[in-house]
Amino acid sequence: MPVDFPESVRELVVQLRKLPGIGPRSAERMAVWMIHQRNGSVAQLSAALTRVDNEVQLCSACGFFVDHGGCAVCSDTGRDVRMLCVVEQPTDVLSIERTGQFKGRYHVLGGRLSPLENVAPEDIRIDGLNERIISDNVEEVILALGSDVEGEATGHYLAEMLGRKSVKVTRLAQGMPAGGGLEHADPLTLMRALNDRRDA
Amino acid sequence: MPVDFPESVRELVVQLRKLPGIGPRSAERMAVWMIHQRNGSVAQLSAALTRVDNEVQLCSACGFFVDHGGCAVCSDTGRDVRMLCVVEQPTDVLSIERTGQFKGRYHVLGGRLSPLENVAPEDIRIDGLNERIISDNVEEVILALGSDVEGEATGHYLAEMLGRKSVKVTRLAQGMPAGGGLEHADPLTLMRALNDRRDA
Repeated sequence: MPVDFPESVRELVVQLRKLPGIGPRSAERMAVWMIHQRNGSVAQLSAALTRVDNEVQLCSACGFFVDHGGCAVCSDTGRDVRMLCVVEQPTDVLSIERTGQFKGRYHVLGGRLSPLENVAPEDIRIDGLNERIISDNVEEVILALGSDVEGEATGHYLAEMLGRKSVKVTRLAQGMPAGGGLEHADPLTLMRALNDRRDA
Repeated sequence: MPVDFPESVRELVVQLRKLPGIGPRSAERMAVWMIHQRNGSVAQLSAALTRVDNEVQLCSACGFFVDHGGCAVCSDTGRDVRMLCVVEQPTDVLSIERTGQFKGRYHVLGGRLSPLENVAPEDIRIDGLNERIISDNVEEVILALGSDVEGEATGHYLAEMLGRKSVKVTRLAQGMPAGGGLEHADPLTLMRALNDRRDA
């Protein structure tokens, strides 16, 4: 048997390979890097992992990430509770926030409808959405979902469901992405941009 | 201020970004992955890190990785102590082992001579090499160093130093790598392959 890494290093490589986007070579390189650290970096990383594992949860109201400090969105009294932006994932909240254009609150579904993956309406946070629209007197629901098949299907489902209530339902515009020439746009994007054209 | 990740998640991203080959996007993706784990994966990774941090050291004799189990090379009584293979890094031991062609022991220098990076002979494990050659009655030292400038310089230094002792000193052959056509070989590799040509 040729010599291999010590057992504790092999175990670390196994754990590192579970991370998204980390293959066998990257995991080995990271493990070797850990061995050579002698300044507390590994202990700091381990402590940061444990803290996230123990402290971070999803806000029971909006579904965004919270730690012991509470929900940064729901606790912000400067936000307009009558505007509610529906997104698929907690990280989508950050994407909208980075635009600086939205000052309302969010509702994270935690997924999207997908018959292929067995995700039905009761599997995502739709009940909570209905409750919040009533309790917060929401006036407009912005559906900020993905523009792929599942995102569109989820949007249609929610638009139909919410259409029965006295709430305005809007969705993100579809069209040409910023900075791209026509030669880079796929036919579906270009078709939607044509159909939704506006006065110049 | 737009909403960002909770503080504990931002701290984890900072720690993950220190890892080799991990940029800001990968670190964020990994941190989000950790948040969504609910099956103990994060605790397992954290424990594996702590174990490597606490247990893994370099063998005081050969310089390879050891944990509580001791050195897998030095404790192997089936190895020929009269053959000593000198490498730059602990991971180089694994590369040689994977060939299955060497049944002696190793001496890891832990670096290579580099005037540019201020690495002098006293900064790498050369003293220990001299002691082992005498105490183990080593008959052949194989210099398995990199074929770049620093590796070659380190090899020349060691060959000259060991030339004064009654020990045979060899180095890895240089030439065409396996599986490559001539069109992929750089001029220096091809020149060395020509100069070291052998009878067919």
